[in-house]
Amino acid sequence: MNNKGKIYVVGIGPGNMEHMSLMALKAIEKSQVVIGYKTYINLIKDLLKDKEVIDSSMKKEIERCNLTIDEAEKGRIVSIVSSGDPGIYGMAGIILELINKRKSEIDVEIVPGISAANAAAASLGSPLMHDFAVISLSNLLTDWEIIKKRIECAAAGDFIISLYNPKSKRRVNQIAESRDIILKYRKPSTPVGIVKNAKRTGEKVIITDLENMLNYEIDMFTIIIVGNSNTYIENGKMITPRGYNI
Amino acid sequence: MNNKGKIYVVGIGPGNMEHMSLMALKAIEKSQVVIGYKTYINLIKDLLKDKEVIDSSMKKEIERCNLTIDEAEKGRIVSIVSSGDPGIYGMAGIILELINKRKSEIDVEIVPGISAANAAAASLGSPLMHDFAVISLSNLLTDWEIIKKRIECAAAGDFIISLYNPKSKRRVNQIAESRDIILKYRKPSTPVGIVKNAKRTGEKVIITDLENMLNYEIDMFTIIIVGNSNTYIENGKMITPRGYNI
Ligand SMILES: C[S@@+](CC[C@H](N)C(=O)[O-])C[C@H]1O[C@@H](n2cnc3c(N)ncnc32)[C@H](O)[C@@H]1O
Ligand SMILES: C[S@@+](CC[C@H](N)C(=O)[O-])C[C@H]1O[C@@H](n2cnc3c(N)ncnc32)[C@H](O)[C@@H]1O
Repeated sequence: MNNKGKIYVVGIGPGNMEHMSLMALKAIEKSQVVIGYKTYINLIKDLLKDKEVIDSSMKKEIERCNLTIDEAEKGRIVSIVSSGDPGIYGMAGIILELINKRKSEIDVEIVPGISAANAAAASLGSPLMHDFAVISLSNLLTDWEIIKKRIECAAAGDFIISLYNPKSKRRVNQIAESRDIILKYRKPSTPVGIVKNAKRTGEKVIITDLENMLNYEIDMFTIIIVGNSNTYIENGKMITPRGYNI
Repeated sequence: MNNKGKIYVVGIGPGNMEHMSLMALKAIEKSQVVIGYKTYINLIKDLLKDKEVIDSSMKKEIERCNLTIDEAEKGRIVSIVSSGDPGIYGMAGIILELINKRKSEIDVEIVPGISAANAAAASLGSPLMHDFAVISLSNLLTDWEIIKKRIECAAAGDFIISLYNPKSKRRVNQIAESRDIILKYRKPSTPVGIVKNAKRTGEKVIITDLENMLNYEIDMFTIIIVGNSNTYIENGKMITPRGYNI
C-alpha cells in the first residue's frame, strides 16, 4: 500500500466558482486526478487544465467512488467532487463506507461546501433563520413511507422544511403528496421558495405559497423551502423572524 | 437616499480563512466598512488592513445591523459578517427585517457560507448523509417549550439532529433535557459527535454516544450531531449510510 495517495472529497458549492471555498480550490489544485459527474466537472473546468479528469454518468456513484480509491491506492492525489456540500446527499458517505469495506488505509479529507439550501436561502431572503429540517424526496434509496413520516414530523414540529430532489422525470408525485401532508399543519398561505440553479448560471427564484406552489416548474435542479408558521413575504423576500424585537 | 450604498451580509464560514468562499472574500475586498462581532473580525483581520472596522459585543445584534444600514445610507459599501452561513441563526434576517422597518432602499446581498453543521460533519466523517434537523437550544429568543417539541418531533422522525448553541455559561440544562427526549426514541448507543471550533484553530472532535455524551466539555463554541437509528462508528468516523448497497 502506497502511503502517499490521498483522497479529497470536495464540495464545490452550488455551482459558479465564486461560491467555492479556498480549501476546495487548493484541494483540486493539489490533485493529479479529478473525478466527478460531468455536470460538476463542467462547472469547474477552468481549474482542470493540467489534470487527469474522469467524468462519469449520474447513476454510477459506487463505481466512481471505487475508482477514486483505486487511483489513490496507486499513490496519487485524487479529488472526487460533489456539488454543494459532499456530506449532504453527496459523495462523503460512500467514500468512507467503501474505504472501510476495502480495508483501505488511504487518507481521506472531506472538504465541506456551501449546500443548496444555504445558497437558495441567500437568494430568497432569510427563510432559514429558525430551526429547519432537510429532507430528500428521492425514494431510490429510502422508502417513501419513511420520507412521508419525516415530512409529517417536520410539519408537526413547525420546522422550516428544505426539500432536496423534489422531482425528476420519473418521480413526479412526491412533491404533491408532500405538500398535502404539510397542509395538514400549515395554512395554504404559508410562504414557499422555489429556487432552480441556486447561485449558478440560469438561477430562477420564485416566491409563492403552499396553495400555489405546484403551478411552477419544479425539477431535479430545484430546491424548495417551505416556511414555518411565522415566515412572511415582504418586499419580494421570504423572511423567517428569529424572535428579535425589531 | 444615496443609491450607491450597498450591504453585503457575509458568511465567513466556520473560522479559518481557507473555508471562506471567493465571493465572501470579494465582498469584503469591495467594502469600505466591515462590521461584526469581534471574534469574527479577528478571524479575518488579515483582510481588513485598509478598511474601517467596527467591532461590537455579542448582545448588540440590532444596533450592529442598524449601524450597518446607517453606513450604507451614507453611500458606502458595507460588509456585516456572520460566522458560518449568515442565513442560519446569523445576521441575514435582522438586516432584512430592519431594512423593511426603516423602509430603506439600500441594496442587500446575502453571501452564503459554510455553516457549522457542514464543517463539523466533515470533521466527524459523514453523519449528515441522510435527512436531518437543525435546532438551536438557545431559549433567549424562543420558548423552551417550542424547542422541546421540535426535539421530540425530530427524534420521532428519525432525523439526524444538529444542535446549535447547546450550552452557555448561564444556560446549562437544555442539553441534558434534550438528550432525555431523544433517548425516548433512540438507543443509548446512538452515535453522537461533539465538535468544538469546527474547522478553525483549536478544533476538538469527539465521537461518543447518547449514553456518554454529557461526560464531555460542551460550550457555546460547540456543535453536537446526534445520529439517526442507522448511524454507526467505524474506524474513528461517524457514518450515516444513505442506503446504497455497498
Ligand atoms: C444529490 S443532491 C446533492 C446535494 C448537494 N450535495 C448539496 O449539498 O447541495 C441533488 C439535489 O440538490 C439540490 N441542488 C443541488 N444544487 C442545487 C442548486 N444549485 N440549486 C438548486 N438545487 C440544487 C436539488 O434539489 C438536487 O435535486
Ligand atoms: C449564533 S449561532 C451562528 C451559526 C452560524 N451562522 C453558522 O451558520 O454556523 C452560534 C452557534 O453556532 C455553532 N458554531 C458556529 N461556528 C462553530 C464552529 N466553528 N464550531 C462549532 N460550532 C460552531 C455553535 O453551536 C454556536 O453556539
